[in-house]
Amino acid sequence: NEDGGCFLKPGGDVLASLKTLEILSESAEEKKIIVHGQLEGNDAVVVLEKNPFSKDTLEELFTSSTLKFDMENNIYSSYSLQVPLHLNEIKTTVIYPATEEHLKKYRSHQSFLVEETGDDYQSITLPYIQSRTFSIQWVYNILEKKAEAERIVYEDPDPKVGFTLLPDLKWDQKRVVNLYLIAIVHQRGIKSLRDLTEEHLPLLQNILKKGKEAIRTHYQLPASKLRIYLHYQPSYYHLHVHFTNLKYRAPGCGLERAHFLSDVIQNLQSDGQYYKTRTLSFQLHEGNGLLCKFKEAGRLEFR
Amino acid sequence: NEDGGCFLKPGGDVLASLKTLEILSESAEEKKIIVHGQLEGNDAVVVLEKNPFSKDTLEELFTSSTLKFDMENNIYSSYSLQVPLHLNEIKTTVIYPATEEHLKKYRSHQSFLVEETGDDYQSITLPYIQSRTFSIQWVYNILEKKAEAERIVYEDPDPKVGFTLLPDLKWDQKRVVNLYLIAIVHQRGIKSLRDLTEEHLPLLQNILKKGKEAIRTHYQLPASKLRIYLHYQPSYYHLHVHFTNLKYRAPGCGLERAHFLSDVIQNLQSDGQYYKTRTLSFQLHEGNGLLCKFKEAGRLEFR
Repeated sequence: NEDGGCFLKPGGDVLASLKTLEILSESAEEKKIIVHGQLEGNDAVVVLEKNPFSKDTLEELFTSSTLKFDMENNIYSSYSLQVPLHLNEIKTTVIYPATEEHLKKYRSHQSFLVEETGDDYQSITLPYIQSRTFSIQWVYNILEKKAEAERIVYEDPDPKVGFTLLPDLKWDQKRVVNLYLIAIVHQRGIKSLRDLTEEHLPLLQNILKKGKEAIRTHYQLPASKLRIYLHYQPSYYHLHVHFTNLKYRAPGCGLERAHFLSDVIQNLQSDGQYYKTRTLSFQLHEGNGLLCKFKEAGRLEFR
Repeated sequence: NEDGGCFLKPGGDVLASLKTLEILSESAEEKKIIVHGQLEGNDAVVVLEKNPFSKDTLEELFTSSTLKFDMENNIYSSYSLQVPLHLNEIKTTVIYPATEEHLKKYRSHQSFLVEETGDDYQSITLPYIQSRTFSIQWVYNILEKKAEAERIVYEDPDPKVGFTLLPDLKWDQKRVVNLYLIAIVHQRGIKSLRDLTEEHLPLLQNILKKGKEAIRTHYQLPASKLRIYLHYQPSYYHLHVHFTNLKYRAPGCGLERAHFLSDVIQNLQSDGQYYKTRTLSFQLHEGNGLLCKFKEAGRLEFR
């Protein structure tokens, strides 16, 4: 059809046949809800998030919506606004079939700050990561252009310092205000921050420089309006870098998870073993397998 | 009508006749936009915010909406969902007539990431701080118990390593879920992170240890549920440390402003000059005096 999407009905009518089992989490602030359901007997996770407003369609929204009066007090009045369907869509992501791991990941729980020493990484975290069978085939699909090839914003194909830059799934690509891109490195085997040493400086500097340039070219957003960072722990163990609009308070940009790429570079420049030796603090949620391992090892400060 | 609202049309058709002048602010995260417009020649402020999801209508939403396919990769697929009008209303608040004060209040400024080298600190930031006459008498009043004495949660009176711990003004002290305390050091003359060297390690370690203990005693919150950090730039230049509930996404806990106290301690342990020599990145808003100084010095990466 006109805007390139195809309307799914029966067969593709995924949500109508969904049997809702549980709300995994919800955020009134972000207008988001995550549901655990079943489709044909298999688990599914459905993430619903309302889209941000777009300046470009504001005029149409004002002229073609219906106001329902709510209350009035002096100069203040409030209403409910009913808006044409195409101006008020909801971003929907379906994970299907979903595993117990996915359910755990999306279920909201108590959270704890883990302080992982270099030794903890070797004795607790690394064995945990290696025991996991969380597939990163989807990452290789992207790098090999077997999937999402049309979404690639920029690519440096160099096997050593190259990377593929593409929109994060959380971004609808419509508004620069919540710009969210991911640079995935071509080099395989770099699991996370912990694997980085001075030998990776050319790779990191290349991502910083060319990522900034590509975003300036494609989205007219200068480097001074970007937040460029790595996650630790990451959600998958193949090195990638996050680029978000500084204005957008993206999930996972808190100090308990995010590390500026520029800081990582500086730290490695002055100490190539920085990320092998430092204690790194990060937040884990109840039910997370790694958190259990830290608990078992008596490494969680509950006092 | 049935649901108690009355539908406004001409006369009450406020938005259709609104002449949009300016977007005062917008939040992609909160799905909110604030518009400055005119109605019959007078200023108006219109606040639009999408409503959170309601569990009660989720079933109806799933069965009566239309899915538009967006993309698919492995177990992940994404869609745009078009939802019946009454399930997807937008909360609208109109301030009319609005004064210049209202416009100021709602206008958000652009923000930029400043990368301050050690030299920039000496040549731009330090002279700027010293030229300010922003009084910190209120801090001395707290330390000397001339003000807020009844709010003190814990005090170590030692002049060298001591501090006063009290609730931040942003915390209502009612719910531990958004706990927010500040430790203000007794020692004067330590302006910020930039002034810290290895000689301050006993002070920082004392705050970390005794602050954790005091919070555990008073609020039954263990250290693993706390986020303990410094701001750079801080909002006042007398050293203080933030203690917030890890669960609470406090303002200023993003990586563009917050530094874990435990990281500061580690960095100083391995390099006493760490915070004198590093490039530190932080966010400043348009109109901020320090941002102007960085612009004048040609130190803001606009490219």
